[in-house]
Amino acid sequence: MTKGWRIFTSSLRLLALVATLTATIIMVTSHDSAEVLNLTFKAKYSNESAFKYFVIAEAVASGYSLIALFVSSKSLLWRLVVILDVIITILLTSSVSAALAIAHVGKKGNSHAGWLPICGQVPKFCNQVTGSLIAAFIAAIVYLVLILYSLRTVLSPLITV
Amino acid sequence: MTKGWRIFTSSLRLLALVATLTATIIMVTSHDSAEVLNLTFKAKYSNESAFKYFVIAEAVASGYSLIALFVSSKSLLWRLVVILDVIITILLTSSVSAALAIAHVGKKGNSHAGWLPICGQVPKFCNQVTGSLIAAFIAAIVYLVLILYSLRTVLSPLITV
Repeated sequence: MTKGWRIFTSSLRLLALVATLTATIIMVTSHDSAEVLNLTFKAKYSNESAFKYFVIAEAVASGYSLIALFVSSKSLLWRLVVILDVIITILLTSSVSAALAIAHVGKKGNSHAGWLPICGQVPKFCNQVTGSLIAAFIAAIVYLVLILYSLRTVLSPLITV
Repeated sequence: MTKGWRIFTSSLRLLALVATLTATIIMVTSHDSAEVLNLTFKAKYSNESAFKYFVIAEAVASGYSLIALFVSSKSLLWRLVVILDVIITILLTSSVSAALAIAHVGKKGNSHAGWLPICGQVPKFCNQVTGSLIAAFIAAIVYLVLILYSLRTVLSPLITV
């Protein structure tokens, strides 16, 4: 790997680290409460399985991004990094999609199933979830670029970088 | 690519084709109705955005799996197949995760948000969605194996298959 490419992939990993860390922190600290018919209704991420899965996935990706920054591309461990990049991309995609599906019901509701939207009552919570999803989406895109970079030898066997 | 490997990857692509086609058909044909308080309540996939996205994603993956079966590994198009395998894996993972998140709310509900489970009323619909999700999950795993196979040159540069 040339120095230019090393700086490029390291920058991407750093960006992924920041994005996943941001997504985790925003989602964990998201909360809001509303009073409906004299009952206080509290919204937080831990009330929904998909958001809990999201937090775990983003935290794992965050930790991995930090560790991968320090693995030399010349070491044998690097091959493990290539496989783990694929696994982490799938984990990120999966967690963003699940959380997005639930966030969509939270915002729009589903009249057929009788699920009412909740974002009108807890707008602060919904805004934080949206911010967290955007950060996680950026991280997923960054990992996709890293995979395509790993596949470059398959794509152009003549290029040796 | 040796003959053995070609048969192996072709079998995987055929399995992915069958799985995604099954997932699409089961989800599209899923429907059930229940009578609640003299109102007929109809459950079908098109009532929920995540299920519509699921059907589109599975149909696209199904069409792609069919086309990829006929692309020779010696042609230049093969490089495109390698990139598209990654894109399709991400598409499948994303659609399964989104649909699973909604199916989970359908089965368990979310008392905090006031979303009641609907599977008690429309068990036939829920069973079909479950079947469709299992088929789609198998397809996603198959594509993950295909990606790892494409990455073999990165993982073991000395092996030429």
